[in-house]
Amino acid sequence: MPAVTVVENILGANDRLAAENRKRLDAAGIYAVNIMASPGAGKTSVILQTIKGLGEDLRLGVIEGDTASVTIDSDKVLAAGMPAVQINTGGACHLDAVMIRSALDELPLDRLDLIIVENVGNLVCPAAFKLGTHANILIASIPEGDDKPYKYPGIYRGLDVLIINKMDLLPHVRFDREYFRRGVEALNPGLTTFALSCETGEGCGPWVEWIKHRVRGSHPDRRE
Amino acid sequence: MPAVTVVENILGANDRLAAENRKRLDAAGIYAVNIMASPGAGKTSVILQTIKGLGEDLRLGVIEGDTASVTIDSDKVLAAGMPAVQINTGGACHLDAVMIRSALDELPLDRLDLIIVENVGNLVCPAAFKLGTHANILIASIPEGDDKPYKYPGIYRGLDVLIINKMDLLPHVRFDREYFRRGVEALNPGLTTFALSCETGEGCGPWVEWIKHRVRGSHPDRRE
Repeated sequence: MPAVTVVENILGANDRLAAENRKRLDAAGIYAVNIMASPGAGKTSVILQTIKGLGEDLRLGVIEGDTASVTIDSDKVLAAGMPAVQINTGGACHLDAVMIRSALDELPLDRLDLIIVENVGNLVCPAAFKLGTHANILIASIPEGDDKPYKYPGIYRGLDVLIINKMDLLPHVRFDREYFRRGVEALNPGLTTFALSCETGEGCGPWVEWIKHRVRGSHPDRRE
Repeated sequence: MPAVTVVENILGANDRLAAENRKRLDAAGIYAVNIMASPGAGKTSVILQTIKGLGEDLRLGVIEGDTASVTIDSDKVLAAGMPAVQINTGGACHLDAVMIRSALDELPLDRLDLIIVENVGNLVCPAAFKLGTHANILIASIPEGDDKPYKYPGIYRGLDVLIINKMDLLPHVRFDREYFRRGVEALNPGLTTFALSCETGEGCGPWVEWIKHRVRGSHPDRRE
């Protein structure tokens, strides 16, 4: 079987499982997001700021993807008082729908409003594998540089939200915001974007409001 | 065929091609390094500092791996006066030995002493694919955080050299050098490490001396 066919079959099977995950989430009235980023862009920090911002308003569960059996990130989420499931991809560079299905089995779905999936730190393959979540979110970070939309167009094309993290480092690095913005706009016009710093907390409010609004939209009974 | 067998066959075929690339490099008297890193850690900046540091001493060629058909990095290398070949991986998240074989066909091997391969920005899959180069080099960067050796152990285990870049950002971010060092030491004891800043140029000298020494070691006629 040619390699291209094998890849198409794998992605097709993954898409079908992703659709099943979505049905299961919808049936449970859960809104779910897939957070992607380079290693070290601040995925876990954004999740911790989100937990803080949500307060008691919404019940959150977290699925943590890692390539090794370390629990650094899931321990932080558990310490923040949230149910977390760790997925060890066994060296694979992305999460897929099968892994999410197993993780959903371990979360108390009937007691959650929102699930945040933290994908493996990688700007390439996570973009190709649907998980069944409702929104794809990328965290870009200022010190990574302003050329990333040009170099990793695939991930930017499929986004619903872009978070630009580490805004506090802007005075200390070369980062042309206009060049970055033009790159994003060419791939994904009008993309919803939040610029923030998890270190100072500045700018986190609008992002937390966005996700609260989305979760309430998928739970008409919880709408304010 | 079970998926594991397919992966083993792919890696086995890659290893054989990598061995052929190595023979070809050795026959031409060329020392070659494989530079890996997260997106935005500074692979191209380190290459540009290396070009500057080498001056007229050694003849360098660069192979630039990118997932899309952008020439941002190879243009910078060409602008620095060096022969560069761009590899578009067509969306794949790593380089492999076949891609390097094609790139070697396009470089003037009889007129080079050193080849630097810039892998795709990714801490996972590049570690699994041998290219035929003589040394694996990882660029870690300060703003990525001090927990990366714990989260991406595979890539640290196979390294010959670690470069810690963006040392100028150390005063502006939380980075526990001792925690980072312990993580590296557990995976790769005694690993040769250079801490530097491509922004200020500080610390680049010892790295350039290391690579000069290595190249001369593989060219007895050029030894000082």
